[in-house]
Amino acid sequence: MSRVAYVNGRYLPHRSSRVHIEDRGFQFADSVYEVIAIRAGQFVDEERHLARLKRSREALELSAPMSDAALKTVLRETVRRNHVADGIVYLQVTRGAAPREFAFPKRARPSLIVTARAQAIADPALIERGVAVITVPDLRWKRPDIKSVSLLPNVLAKQQAKYADAYEAWQVDAYGNVTEGTSSNAWVVNGVGEVVTRQADHSILNGVTRLGLIDIIERAGLRLVERPFSVSEARAAREAFLTSSTNGVLPVVRIDGGAVGDGRPGSLAVTLAAAYRRYMAEGTR
Amino acid sequence: MSRVAYVNGRYLPHRSSRVHIEDRGFQFADSVYEVIAIRAGQFVDEERHLARLKRSREALELSAPMSDAALKTVLRETVRRNHVADGIVYLQVTRGAAPREFAFPKRARPSLIVTARAQAIADPALIERGVAVITVPDLRWKRPDIKSVSLLPNVLAKQQAKYADAYEAWQVDAYGNVTEGTSSNAWVVNGVGEVVTRQADHSILNGVTRLGLIDIIERAGLRLVERPFSVSEARAAREAFLTSSTNGVLPVVRIDGGAVGDGRPGSLAVTLAAAYRRYMAEGTR
Repeated sequence: MSRVAYVNGRYLPHRSSRVHIEDRGFQFADSVYEVIAIRAGQFVDEERHLARLKRSREALELSAPMSDAALKTVLRETVRRNHVADGIVYLQVTRGAAPREFAFPKRARPSLIVTARAQAIADPALIERGVAVITVPDLRWKRPDIKSVSLLPNVLAKQQAKYADAYEAWQVDAYGNVTEGTSSNAWVVNGVGEVVTRQADHSILNGVTRLGLIDIIERAGLRLVERPFSVSEARAAREAFLTSSTNGVLPVVRIDGGAVGDGRPGSLAVTLAAAYRRYMAEGTR
Repeated sequence: MSRVAYVNGRYLPHRSSRVHIEDRGFQFADSVYEVIAIRAGQFVDEERHLARLKRSREALELSAPMSDAALKTVLRETVRRNHVADGIVYLQVTRGAAPREFAFPKRARPSLIVTARAQAIADPALIERGVAVITVPDLRWKRPDIKSVSLLPNVLAKQQAKYADAYEAWQVDAYGNVTEGTSSNAWVVNGVGEVVTRQADHSILNGVTRLGLIDIIERAGLRLVERPFSVSEARAAREAFLTSSTNGVLPVVRIDGGAVGDGRPGSLAVTLAAAYRRYMAEGTR
């Protein structure tokens, strides 16, 4: 089956889907994006993704390429044309194509690109095994709360993880505290059973899965603490896990080569992973 | 006259020059670039630009799209086809197009895009007037010494300058020291006649014009000091100026609305601007 992409008003064969060389997404990383999970044909937390897209756009004074209603139609049509039941839809908005100057162009119209592909979402086999993470210095710009395509440091960190046979890299700030993964939020469970994750300020992206899991944790009456935690606290934690749209809740069993707890997925992480899979199935979308 | 661009092996009409939507330059800012000035048909400091391109590529483990000899041919052919006598040639190398994953793709081939356009280089009218700058927090990632297209913070800062009717924004680190402009290096001349500019470590891009000017300063027997300088030192400086490939040496006459010296281009800055124009004409290329 050949894939289809939406590019600035047209559905095109994916292989021949292109943007102009002076699109500001290509020359300046002047662009924002979202990745929304599709689970059993349903969009997971679409409203939260669209709200975050709006927030990212507005932080950059980047106007909307179309209304949310029209955007939802394009997302659905792209998913339909690619026959995705479980997978992701990726959307990217840029400030458009214009002669190369750093300041905002006067006349450019925002570009919108949408793709979709099938892939496992919150893969139970991966959850059962758990994954290894490494820690690396956080080299990113000071506004990773804006979901822009300024992802070069994330790319380099993820590649470091790959070289170390790890699944993800947890980025560490100047104080030795974990900010987040390259494409996921970071969590630990400490010795008294508190679930700890960094507060959503300018230093991390406020993950939609993070927010969904916070709802689950609060409804379950578990103790949630939003604060920075250090690498050494993470290494000594009872449990650790990460969250992302494609992974749901994924146990972390090794940090920088050392076992977390007994080196197997923690019981609370596994419980939360199952709860998140139910949350996706029930849908708050 | 219609413009021509080089895109991955082909010379195409500029208006229809495109890259794939999954080019990593577009989705991850996984890309480096150079802008080389063309002055009276000559490439200014081409070897230094190509050496810096190599350095940027290697820092990102990004392989060369072609040999330097072949690249020079493409640069010349693009300049020729666009009839540029005074202007710039822009070249961008990306890690290529591949299904979207953060880590380096196994099979992608680097993309190479080259454009050229006519524009004033080291414009004497601008040098005679001088320009205003504002200061803004430096929000960039921690490796701006790599000339990547991770330019979103630069875009936002330049737009702030535009809103303030200024020409450039000088970015300021956590210690109150100026790092550099969004697309230029920053310099001051202090009360004892020392020319001060920040040392080229990981915190700034080591400008090719910066290096050319250092040669000129040293040959002239002037006193050069490479160290950080603060915003307040800059405001109280005898003179200030910026350097870039397109501007050469450009006097700064206002910082955050306050006059530098008597508010007119400083005598040393004007002398250095003229010397740099001669340097371009004589050529060390």
